[in-house]
Amino acid sequence: MRATATHFLKALNSHLGRHHSNSTAMKLLYPTSLKLDVQSIEGFPLTLHAYDVKTPIPDDLIDAEVLVTWANAASNLKDAAGRMKNLRWIQSLAAGPNDVLSAGFDASKITITTGSGLHDRTVAEHALGLLLNAARRFFEMRDYQLQGKWPGHLGGPQPDRPAGKFTTLRDARVLIWGFGNIAKTLTPSLVGLGSTIKGVARHPGVRNGIEVYSEDKLPELLPETDALVMILPGDPSTKHALNAERMRMLPKHAWVVNVGRGTSIDEDALVDALEAGTIGGAALDVFETEPLPESSRLWKAPNVIVSPHAAGGRPQGSEALIVENLRKLLAGQQLRNVI
Amino acid sequence: MRATATHFLKALNSHLGRHHSNSTAMKLLYPTSLKLDVQSIEGFPLTLHAYDVKTPIPDDLIDAEVLVTWANAASNLKDAAGRMKNLRWIQSLAAGPNDVLSAGFDASKITITTGSGLHDRTVAEHALGLLLNAARRFFEMRDYQLQGKWPGHLGGPQPDRPAGKFTTLRDARVLIWGFGNIAKTLTPSLVGLGSTIKGVARHPGVRNGIEVYSEDKLPELLPETDALVMILPGDPSTKHALNAERMRMLPKHAWVVNVGRGTSIDEDALVDALEAGTIGGAALDVFETEPLPESSRLWKAPNVIVSPHAAGGRPQGSEALIVENLRKLLAGQQLRNVI
Repeated sequence: MRATATHFLKALNSHLGRHHSNSTAMKLLYPTSLKLDVQSIEGFPLTLHAYDVKTPIPDDLIDAEVLVTWANAASNLKDAAGRMKNLRWIQSLAAGPNDVLSAGFDASKITITTGSGLHDRTVAEHALGLLLNAARRFFEMRDYQLQGKWPGHLGGPQPDRPAGKFTTLRDARVLIWGFGNIAKTLTPSLVGLGSTIKGVARHPGVRNGIEVYSEDKLPELLPETDALVMILPGDPSTKHALNAERMRMLPKHAWVVNVGRGTSIDEDALVDALEAGTIGGAALDVFETEPLPESSRLWKAPNVIVSPHAAGGRPQGSEALIVENLRKLLAGQQLRNVI
Repeated sequence: MRATATHFLKALNSHLGRHHSNSTAMKLLYPTSLKLDVQSIEGFPLTLHAYDVKTPIPDDLIDAEVLVTWANAASNLKDAAGRMKNLRWIQSLAAGPNDVLSAGFDASKITITTGSGLHDRTVAEHALGLLLNAARRFFEMRDYQLQGKWPGHLGGPQPDRPAGKFTTLRDARVLIWGFGNIAKTLTPSLVGLGSTIKGVARHPGVRNGIEVYSEDKLPELLPETDALVMILPGDPSTKHALNAERMRMLPKHAWVVNVGRGTSIDEDALVDALEAGTIGGAALDVFETEPLPESSRLWKAPNVIVSPHAAGGRPQGSEALIVENLRKLLAGQQLRNVI
């Protein structure tokens, strides 16, 4: 066992381009901003150290080679980028790397991996909740409740699946734009409720039994959509992906649900469409600016559900990802979720 | 074909205890209060006639033998009970027979069948929506939205599945009290989201893979429940089934969802528990009195979601039930959903 550990350590040192003596164990820093089962990431030739993500890394940990991040203060990351001279790998537990990227770490020396996949179930659940909130109009019921009024028009005998309305997921045509792991996780719930699902992604094909189209098919797909679920990442290529022109392609009753990134929707165009009634509604968990500014027209626009970036924010299975990537690092293999 | 039709007609007449000449076709009255595919119920030796459920049955239809009801005015039913002397079978499309029963039809002469099963999917979908509304606190987000305020405490980094809180259906312990067809329809959605389901019903056993317990096990089951979904029918035996004593058995964070009948919960005890914080919340689609009276303490009690009896109200598959029961009537067999 010792021989194996030594071999691993050498491999690690070699991979990291350093030449430690056996007596100087390498350091992995894990955040106290979430509950981690630290025992389950033990067994590697590294020492594990808790750190506070809101304050600067303490001096005795500043020589760490591996940093796991979650909900770090911008000041913590900026300080770490300047002072952690031995840092070789950052494992973020967030779905996207934006906070790490903007802190100024030297990307030529440091491998950055994200927590993509750790948020699939929780974001999918939130998206499902937003879809049902929209279809069943819980938001409107709440407005009545706060006034002590019974919203009789929303209850009692109702037409079943009326044409030109989004009132149920049964037989609803749901288009998921950004068809990655979250979409794959969401799809079985929607299929179970009777929805018809299509996807849109950069690479078309059939995924998990769902036909996924390329973006150039949007002009054919959007007019046949009752609910558009957007799960696009927040990079420059997705900026205002849903713009005024594409909104006009949606039926008047169609809802837009966004659990990806706020920048993928042109919010001004969205409010215009909502106010003009040329779109059914929008259930938004992400916004171009967060927190949503007081001045935003979205607060008061009709048929808008404002959710405060609450879909994810609770990574699940972080330990397994850290362990997999540590193992791959030691084996000299490509890590998972490298940006 | 004619011979068969004559045979059917004789069988029908014989079953109904009448002796029509062939020239006097029997009449089935169907309501215009919902969209029925009338063609799909043709082919029987009866004539089909539309009627308005809000006004008295017209004189030329008053001799009908079969009446299909949906959302009938109480005055329509009361009038029909007095004037429809030939009536032998009422097919209600509602889940429960309460409106028909209270109209005064002669139950010794008239078979009454309900629309049990026509509302499974739509009620299950609503129940799922209420559960997600509660777990994800969409109702609280709405309160902030109406004030133009960002509910930051509900978004951003969150603990994952914290003990003593109901924040997700993943790993949530859901107890479904009243484990019939709606529960069976709801269960796969909950299992798919990662919940652990148990059931309670008059007859224990394993149903659709779910362990269903008898009510005497509630003292053991309620303390291990994160969300209690009630789908009990509205008869005297279920009155205040969830009373103060049983509410005390629930954990402080547990939510109660009711999509059955309002009478099954002691609302005064519920408001007391909510105000005292000894229960997590209540998402209610049904109430002891509907519409919920202005004076009800439920409007303002903390963590209450008021939904205006909106879970069902849109029967699905009515034609298939009518056709099955007509066929069984002609065959002299027991109808489905006889009360």
